Amino acid sequence: MELQVVEQAVAAASDKTCEGKVATYIPELGKADGSRVGVSVFSRSGERLSVGDTKTRFSIQSISKVISLAVALELCGFDMVFQNVGMEPSGDAFNSMVKLEYAHSVPYNPMINAGAIVIASYLARRISFEEMMRTSRSLCLDPDIVLDENVYRSEMSNISRNRAIAYLLESKGYIEKDVEKCLHFYVKMCSLSVTAESLAGLGLVLANDGIHPATGERLLQEQTVRVVKTIMLTCGMYDGSGQFAVRVGIPSKSGVGGGILSVIDREMGIGIYGPALDDKGNSVAGRYILEYLSEKWHLHLFDNRK
Amino acid sequence: MELQVVEQAVAAASDKTCEGKVATYIPELGKADGSRVGVSVFSRSGERLSVGDTKTRFSIQSISKVISLAVALELCGFDMVFQNVGMEPSGDAFNSMVKLEYAHSVPYNPMINAGAIVIASYLARRISFEEMMRTSRSLCLDPDIVLDENVYRSEMSNISRNRAIAYLLESKGYIEKDVEKCLHFYVKMCSLSVTAESLAGLGLVLANDGIHPATGERLLQEQTVRVVKTIMLTCGMYDGSGQFAVRVGIPSKSGVGGGILSVIDREMGIGIYGPALDDKGNSVAGRYILEYLSEKWHLHLFDNRK
Amino acid sequence: MELQVVEQAVAAASDKTCEGKVATYIPELGKADGSRVGVSVFSRSGERLSVGDTKTRFSIQSISKVISLAVALELCGFDMVFQNVGMEPSGDAFNSMVKLEYAHSVPYNPMINAGAIVIASYLARRISFEEMMRTSRSLCLDPDIVLDENVYRSEMSNISRNRAIAYLLESKGYIEKDVEKCLHFYVKMCSLSVTAESLAGLGLVLANDGIHPATGERLLQEQTVRVVKTIMLTCGMYDGSGQFAVRVGIPSKSGVGGGILSVIDREMGIGIYGPALDDKGNSVAGRYILEYLSEKWHLHLFDNRK
Amino acid sequence: MELQVVEQAVAAASDKTCEGKVATYIPELGKADGSRVGVSVFSRSGERLSVGDTKTRFSIQSISKVISLAVALELCGFDMVFQNVGMEPSGDAFNSMVKLEYAHSVPYNPMINAGAIVIASYLARRISFEEMMRTSRSLCLDPDIVLDENVYRSEMSNISRNRAIAYLLESKGYIEKDVEKCLHFYVKMCSLSVTAESLAGLGLVLANDGIHPATGERLLQEQTVRVVKTIMLTCGMYDGSGQFAVRVGIPSKSGVGGGILSVIDREMGIGIYGPALDDKGNSVAGRYILEYLSEKWHLHLFDNRK
Repeated sequence: MELQVVEQAVAAASDKTCEGKVATYIPELGKADGSRVGVSVFSRSGERLSVGDTKTRFSIQSISKVISLAVALELCGFDMVFQNVGMEPSGDAFNSMVKLEYAHSVPYNPMINAGAIVIASYLARRISFEEMMRTSRSLCLDPDIVLDENVYRSEMSNISRNRAIAYLLESKGYIEKDVEKCLHFYVKMCSLSVTAESLAGLGLVLANDGIHPATGERLLQEQTVRVVKTIMLTCGMYDGSGQFAVRVGIPSKSGVGGGILSVIDREMGIGIYGPALDDKGNSVAGRYILEYLSEKWHLHLFDNRK
Repeated sequence: MELQVVEQAVAAASDKTCEGKVATYIPELGKADGSRVGVSVFSRSGERLSVGDTKTRFSIQSISKVISLAVALELCGFDMVFQNVGMEPSGDAFNSMVKLEYAHSVPYNPMINAGAIVIASYLARRISFEEMMRTSRSLCLDPDIVLDENVYRSEMSNISRNRAIAYLLESKGYIEKDVEKCLHFYVKMCSLSVTAESLAGLGLVLANDGIHPATGERLLQEQTVRVVKTIMLTCGMYDGSGQFAVRVGIPSKSGVGGGILSVIDREMGIGIYGPALDDKGNSVAGRYILEYLSEKWHLHLFDNRK
Repeated sequence: MELQVVEQAVAAASDKTCEGKVATYIPELGKADGSRVGVSVFSRSGERLSVGDTKTRFSIQSISKVISLAVALELCGFDMVFQNVGMEPSGDAFNSMVKLEYAHSVPYNPMINAGAIVIASYLARRISFEEMMRTSRSLCLDPDIVLDENVYRSEMSNISRNRAIAYLLESKGYIEKDVEKCLHFYVKMCSLSVTAESLAGLGLVLANDGIHPATGERLLQEQTVRVVKTIMLTCGMYDGSGQFAVRVGIPSKSGVGGGILSVIDREMGIGIYGPALDDKGNSVAGRYILEYLSEKWHLHLFDNRK
Repeated sequence: MELQVVEQAVAAASDKTCEGKVATYIPELGKADGSRVGVSVFSRSGERLSVGDTKTRFSIQSISKVISLAVALELCGFDMVFQNVGMEPSGDAFNSMVKLEYAHSVPYNPMINAGAIVIASYLARRISFEEMMRTSRSLCLDPDIVLDENVYRSEMSNISRNRAIAYLLESKGYIEKDVEKCLHFYVKMCSLSVTAESLAGLGLVLANDGIHPATGERLLQEQTVRVVKTIMLTCGMYDGSGQFAVRVGIPSKSGVGGGILSVIDREMGIGIYGPALDDKGNSVAGRYILEYLSEKWHLHLFDNRK
């Protein structure tokens, strides 16, 4: 785990950022600087490498789906969580409504919007957003996570498609009444303000099977972490998840704010910031860096050269 | 790796076979005895456990997709293989044509029929079926694999849907002309006659990164095996792959002949026979046994209790 | 046009009502008596036949889509109306969202919910509901049409699916902001309280090319009426429209309140009440009666025996 | 019915042909001259107007679906014909397979390829192609109709998509075995060589309710003609049928060879040749001419100014 390798990765990835675009479907996201790149690597042995913009705050967006799933598993248990949401990759875009209609099924998994809205509905009745924010700080080893009010407001002003998804879910009996409360909860979670370091912290906790790496405190049950890592692997990179698993082989979750959370099981957590996105919504620099590190450090799940 | 655990698994699974049904869409498959169950476990250390019907021959069916993908990767290379077939789980049934139509895309992955037919089209122009059969014997550590002529003929008499898929692929330019030759190749591969032991042998070779466990001969490139294992994990259990990854966490591939091939990376290969199938086409007994062994032996990819 | 034929039709249709069910997706609709049947026939010559429950008030539901389309054509003109809504039968159920998603198109026609919500969005900015109600009274030759407050409230409490459709439309830019106002307008129009006689009146005005049959006043432009009759013919009976056109051949529009509006061009208007519905949402008795009258009186568009 | 109006229509339409393109999916069709335009109008009173290229032979293509439907209704009866094919407009492109898959239904109507292949399967077992050709000559009042061998061969060399449709239908039990024979029959019917005058002749027979206009011989049952005209109206212009019904209001059927068959009920038949097609596969010139004549001569089904 040499600093030099990470620096090379960041340097090369910086050249690629021009191939992507910052998200613009929410005005506030459009203000990000697409050329930014930052990577943090936190190892179980305590080593911490940070290169580039690793202290810049950005909105967590879809990566919050990992935290919400974990907390829902802790609060409701496996069976209840997966009563109204599946575990299958969908092969469709993250905001697709097609399978909900044609396949007459529950949302395919908790990493697409429809599934995450079901999870938000479970949570909104059981835990306050403030409590969720405290849990997020704890899981990310970052006490400074706050709600980005500008993102939150901007997103609530452009919520029509997610509102459509939520009401469709409600009409099918998959979420409880008070759809608006559920939507606010969902959007607030997306608007948490994190850094590449926060994500590396969360990745480390997951790599460590849910145990705080310094204090030894159990933050999440072992089974919760297992489920979360598996679903990150099969569904974490939008409709590019399958390709990412083959090429990179690292359980990861990306967000349109430009972040990627990655877990090298039993070894390390990686957090990335790079707001220029490819056409599937994944950070261009992030994907490049993870492919680079996977190759150099033999991080692929089925790479036994390490 | 105690024999007793496997025996318990088989005994319990035998009680479940009545919940499934043998495949009947091909008359020849309908002749199987749904109560049969057999499991073989071959470890890298050389240990071999076999319980139940592990010497009964049955048709490999979709498990041949693993062999075909591996050979195609060796013969054509990664880039060419994935030019006309993707790596994404589809979320649809194995014989669905919907995504081909609506999503205007290449077949989603090599484990669904459409993708495997594309792979068969690559292979049919490059290698004879006889050569493929010899390779299959080698990879499965089973010199007795033959073509089951009855299954082959029965399947060719009920090929309309796959023929429709193949001609649709041809009309879109994803496979070359001589569709009929490609279909024969595809069906012959599905009609290979294997045992639970053959599948355990193949699993062991994959667990051993492509190296013959006894002779040390490299049978498949390391990268080929990595790709194959990843795609088995994300797409191997039909549209139940995601759930299987979460609950069991073992790269596996099932076939409607009742077989399941499983790979415990760096540890062992498991082969199962149990022709009573659930509604997704996976062996009922096989799924039960793998869930049981995964729990008892901590075989889940992200189970770190082992 | 003999009374006896209508009486026979009603008698025979009454025996069929047990094959259908009253709509229950809105509690208030579920209170209807499924055995009720009524038919009114108003001819251009001034003759009026009424048999059965022709003075019972019920909610107009989807038949209001005909009035809304007509008024929108008058207020906005053909080109503007069909900018964000098509004229194609969809082949899908009335409340389907699939084509909106997969076909990336505007709603297929103004008779499905999505299309009618677009029309409501045009209207809500241009005309008050009270004015629409007055226009409805005028077009139906029925000064007693009112808003059924119970239906309106019941429907607003079960609006999730239509709300989902409306927000999806808004997210795609097909309807203006203030989605809630548009929804209220849409639901109020569905909650107008009519009788079989009201519908016969409306049918007569359309059969008479938009001219009041008694006063000679032009209520609708000739072109508006032509468009409306054509769309009733191709899209008026939900996803049974094509079959109805073949078998019955009368431009009609049904509603889940149990009403059917029919137009025999240049001859007569027919209004039917029969709240027991078939699985496509059309009145069982109504369909039977129209098939019967079409056969007896040679009313099919292409029946030249008359 | 003045010649001058038809001449004006043709002159104006000729200027529009550059907006379209001749079909190229079959090489033989690509040889057509896109600037050609011809119109024939045959009236019940015996008048015949022909302007432009009305004697040029071209392949009938999808217009043969009208003849096949009519003959199938005569040979098998209404109920049997509509057992494995529906009467609903599909809203999808003519060669779509999506509804077959997702909606688990029979083909939507006899005017799309899937439906016409079902009809061809009925016919191929009951009547020889030579007999069908003789019937076509009789119905089109054109004894010179022949099979265009070049088109037939060209089409059979590019049949993959239709072959896929046919085998999918066979796999679902909607057509009988001997799919290849059925396909040959279907393609031969598409390869009949007609002129604008042939189509005007067929239109006149349909306008005359199935009776030969000169001899008075009944060629088709009255009910057969009624069904055919209705389905032409709702489904005849591919996925532009609804819009065409609203704007033009004339039961018509187009083919990618550039022909359009139109029926002005009780009045006249119109045949058009104009091989430059719009993006839905309808003749650009043909659509323009029909809209022009409909407006000038008040031919719209619901135009009562005539």
